[in-house]
Amino acid sequence: MARIAQTSRNPERTQERILGAAFEEFAGKGFAGARVDNIARRAGINKRMLYHYFGDKEALFREVVRRKIAQRKTWSAATPDDPTETLPYWFELACRDTDWIRLLEWEALQSAGESIIAEKRRREAVAGAVRRVRQRQKLGMLSGEFCATEVLLAMVALTWFPLAFPQLTRMIMGRGVSEESFRKRQREFLQKFGAAFRGKERETGFGRLTDRNGHAWADGRRKAR
Amino acid sequence: MARIAQTSRNPERTQERILGAAFEEFAGKGFAGARVDNIARRAGINKRMLYHYFGDKEALFREVVRRKIAQRKTWSAATPDDPTETLPYWFELACRDTDWIRLLEWEALQSAGESIIAEKRRREAVAGAVRRVRQRQKLGMLSGEFCATEVLLAMVALTWFPLAFPQLTRMIMGRGVSEESFRKRQREFLQKFGAAFRGKERETGFGRLTDRNGHAWADGRRKAR
Repeated sequence: MARIAQTSRNPERTQERILGAAFEEFAGKGFAGARVDNIARRAGINKRMLYHYFGDKEALFREVVRRKIAQRKTWSAATPDDPTETLPYWFELACRDTDWIRLLEWEALQSAGESIIAEKRRREAVAGAVRRVRQRQKLGMLSGEFCATEVLLAMVALTWFPLAFPQLTRMIMGRGVSEESFRKRQREFLQKFGAAFRGKERETGFGRLTDRNGHAWADGRRKAR
Repeated sequence: MARIAQTSRNPERTQERILGAAFEEFAGKGFAGARVDNIARRAGINKRMLYHYFGDKEALFREVVRRKIAQRKTWSAATPDDPTETLPYWFELACRDTDWIRLLEWEALQSAGESIIAEKRRREAVAGAVRRVRQRQKLGMLSGEFCATEVLLAMVALTWFPLAFPQLTRMIMGRGVSEESFRKRQREFLQKFGAAFRGKERETGFGRLTDRNGHAWADGRRKAR
């Protein structure tokens, strides 16, 4: 009772708590497996209150997705232009956001090619990411040899896959994905490998960088050869 | 009854049928969600018979994994050495083997960093794959700039990710992963992008190939520039 009295005094905080609990539940069990009872319990409120704020399970899922997209959009806007920095940065984000990857993994298994929740909003977010890749291609930061969509898919693949399949990563790399020694190595690999996405005009050999006039291009993070 | 009479006359075929049904059930629901009842029903035998052949659910899973590893080892042995061919080939295998990817995806979600079933056997298979990458690095087919383990993880990531997250792929690429138009495009992308894994000595520019003497290197599948 005390709790409910408190929540009604601070509806915003209650909503935050519900959304946090919902995100955990969806990441832990997927949309199909998630139970509103559990979400209410995690959030420390009663189910009636939850329905009052968010409607049903699908509406709650939509709101979780909407917030996550807004958050990721902010992160995305801070993406460094150079792919040797983009990949380590995206990998860092993926490490911080494994619950989101797990949520999408459940969705991949449970939706089986059917339409997904909040698809329109998500398509718009994806279209924005594709536009940013295209801009960087125009600026010569990314190779124009490939379609922006292909570049985006490959970059997400390289940075998310190790977190999406932690057991495979552990078997291949001999280290767990949450170990800093693995993360450091992976960031270093992605930094070097990111050169593969550079435009031809800046890439005259594997890892060797020159500007449009053929002069060596200095990258503070890159060791001199 | 007729079915059981038939199965006892051909135990090998019965076992095959059980393993096929088990693979489908594990891919559809993961180890934790799979039910031996369902596997028996799918295989058209009674549960007692299934236990007689394979022991319990975990033993059945081990056998499914053992067979899959043997099959993938054969496929792997046929992997072309040049990374511009390796990636499209691995992508093709991934397209044919999405149930295996799904099974591992369930495992990723359900095992949560704990030890996995048949880990020893699987580590050995992974070690074999790493050795093959290392050999190709020694032969100059793959860049020696990266660790063999990193190369393997990146190659699996690029070829598996689109199938593991079909809903993201559809949103990014605008086409479903089972559409041939997507698959063709992805093969072409991976063929070109595979050049990023080549040794420096063969790579003097993005997509431009020369042999160790600097002569253009002909690739039957590559269009003349």
